Order: sequence, then C-alpha cells, then structure tokens
Amino acid sequence: MKRIYELRYLLLFLCLIIIVGVELKHLESSSAETVSESSSTDEFSYYMDRVDAVFSDLQCFPVVKEEAEGIYPVSYDDSWGAERTYGGERTHEGCDLMAVSNERGKYKVCSMTDGVVKNIGWLEQGGWRIGIESDSGIYYYYAHLDSYEKAFEKGERVVAGQILGRMGDSGYGKEPGTKGNFAVHLHVGIYITDLTGKERAINPYWYLKQLEI
Amino acid sequence: MKRIYELRYLLLFLCLIIIVGVELKHLESSSAETVSESSSTDEFSYYMDRVDAVFSDLQCFPVVKEEAEGIYPVSYDDSWGAERTYGGERTHEGCDLMAVSNERGKYKVCSMTDGVVKNIGWLEQGGWRIGIESDSGIYYYYAHLDSYEKAFEKGERVVAGQILGRMGDSGYGKEPGTKGNFAVHLHVGIYITDLTGKERAINPYWYLKQLEI
Repeated sequence: MKRIYELRYLLLFLCLIIIVGVELKHLESSSAETVSESSSTDEFSYYMDRVDAVFSDLQCFPVVKEEAEGIYPVSYDDSWGAERTYGGERTHEGCDLMAVSNERGKYKVCSMTDGVVKNIGWLEQGGWRIGIESDSGIYYYYAHLDSYEKAFEKGERVVAGQILGRMGDSGYGKEPGTKGNFAVHLHVGIYITDLTGKERAINPYWYLKQLEI
Repeated sequence: MKRIYELRYLLLFLCLIIIVGVELKHLESSSAETVSESSSTDEFSYYMDRVDAVFSDLQCFPVVKEEAEGIYPVSYDDSWGAERTYGGERTHEGCDLMAVSNERGKYKVCSMTDGVVKNIGWLEQGGWRIGIESDSGIYYYYAHLDSYEKAFEKGERVVAGQILGRMGDSGYGKEPGTKGNFAVHLHVGIYITDLTGKERAINPYWYLKQLEI
C-alpha cells in the first residue's frame, strides 16, 4: 500500500509540474507577444512615421536671410526644456530664434512648410501668432510676431517660404498688442499628435539646424 | 508510516503550489508594468528622446569627401522600406549610398559618431561590416565594406570621423569575402532600442541629408 501511495503522489507531482511548466511558458510567450503588438510595432512605427513627416514637411528656415550679409539674422541654441515663468511654472516647448539686432518688425518670418492656417491672432503668451498645419497633420507654430504680412484667414493655404509676418516682441500680456516684455525673437513650435490624440511639442532645434543651409 | 508519507507529500505539494502562485503573480505584474510604461504617456517622450540622441550623436557624413572635387562621391535617395530579396522577402532597413564610380576600395568610410565597436567581421547579407554603439545606446551599422582600415576589436573606442574602412561590394554570400554581387555602395543602418528592448531600424535618410554639409 505504501508503495502505491507514493507512486500516486509522484504521478500527481509530475502532472502538476508539467501543467505549471506549460502555463509559465504560455504566460511568458503571450506577454512577449502582447508587448510587441501593443507597444513596439505600432508605437515605434507611429512615432518614427511622425518624425519622418516633419522631415518631409520642412523646406526652409523660418527667418529670411539678410540679403546684404547672406546670413540668417538670428542666433539660437537648444533651449528645449528650459524654465519659463510667465503664466506659471512651465518648461520651454520650442526654440527661440533671437534677432541679432533687437528691432521690432525688421526681419521677415516665413513658413517652413506648405500647409493650412489653423490659428491666427492674439495669444496671451504667444502674442501675435500663426499656426500652420501641414498635410501630414504636423502643427507648426510661430509666435511673438510684430505684424502679419496680410490678413490671413483660418483655412487659407500657405506655401513653404511664404512670408507670414515680421519678427517682434509681442506677447506676455492679456491685452492684444502688448509688446516689449522681452527681446525680439521668433518662437518656433512643432507639435505632433501622440497616440492618445494629444498634441505634443517636439524639440525643433535639430530640424532648424538642418534647415539652416 | 503511511500517514507520515502522505503528510510529507501534502506539505511538498503546498509548498510547490505557493511557489508557483508567487511566480505566476510576479510574471503577470512584471509584464503589465512593461506594457503600461510603454503604452501611453511615456512612449512619446521615450521615442522623441531616442531621436534627439541620434541627432546629438551624428557628427559627420559616413563617406569622406573627394579632395579634388570637394564633394561626397555618393548618390542616394530615400529607399526606406523598398523590397529586398536576398535571404528571403524583406524590406530595406537602411540607406544605400551608391559610389559615383563603381570601384571597390576607392572611397573611405568613416564613423558618423563617437562610440564603441560592438560588432565586426563577416555577415552573409552585410558582408564585411562594422557596428558602432554610441554612448547613448544608438547602434550604427556600416555594411558591404571592401576592407577595414585596421584590425578593429570589439569594445574598442572610435571617434566621429575616424576611418573605418573602404567602400565595397562585399556580402550576399555565406563565404566570407564574397564580392561583386551588386554595385559598390555603403549601406548605413541606424537602430534604436524600442520600449520592449528590441532593436529597431529607423530611416537614416534624413539624418544623412543633414550631415551632408
């Protein structure tokens, strides 16, 4: 009898071990699959596709060269994530092209891409701004303008290189037209839609560097 | 005696069940973590950070200019995703810089980045290849070389601009040294690690364009 009991338990043991082994394998493989389906194939491809779309959209530097000197009249560095305080603590979600000469309305701002005017007019932080959406759905934002080149309307098509307005120092005030609260510069923003549908800013610095030819 | 045997097995059983339960829970929770981390808020930041890392890494075009003409002796376009058939149906996961003159060993290939030699030697598809990993973990792959500049060793540090070898037409053969199965060119690959830890190729075309100054 003792022998039979022992054998019975041993068999049960073996079965259990086999079942557990199979279960573990299944879990491991299914989690690997889930991960690769949900996160890698799609997100990776999605975001890389968005980056490629930005690259394809961009055709020219957003400030027009000074004819006399043949250079872009701005200086800038990678200020991504730097602190900004107007309107509450926040980080800088763009790139500031600082005018070499601090004069309102002197330098021309042009569209880096083809696209459609999505937003136009006053923003407390951005001042006189214009937002252009490209055909691939990337949003390009130009802020602190001194003036617009013309009365743009929402939905109007613009082409890469088209003059949007003049560089200025508008913004940081509720009152439309507030000027002079900082040095003359162009704030450039580039926004992609993330997988949850939210607009997210990407760092324009490297793309601008590329356009500076 | 029988009772003692039974008890002993029962106890062993219980222990086993507890261990298995703990193991299963652990597996489930760890896979859930991976998925949740990767699936919404952070994936955007993660991939954008990887793209920024590539931008920061890249310092020079991977082919040395012809001194006489002052131009890069290659032509290339965006062949991302184009079909390739050697070694089974697959898509092209890189960018081919075609030599303007179809001569093996004529043009110098240099590292686009600082980094460490991760892989070196023969690959059936890639021929004589070298893989460099940058400090930020991006993998840069140069394939079809005619020869190496020297006997590189795994783990050896290289700097941006350092000559790696000569452009060639090696590869597409099991036999190390197989040459002449296609026109002389440099295949450039750039790989980032996705959120599941898998190496994924990104399109080098735009980055190469940027380096071509």
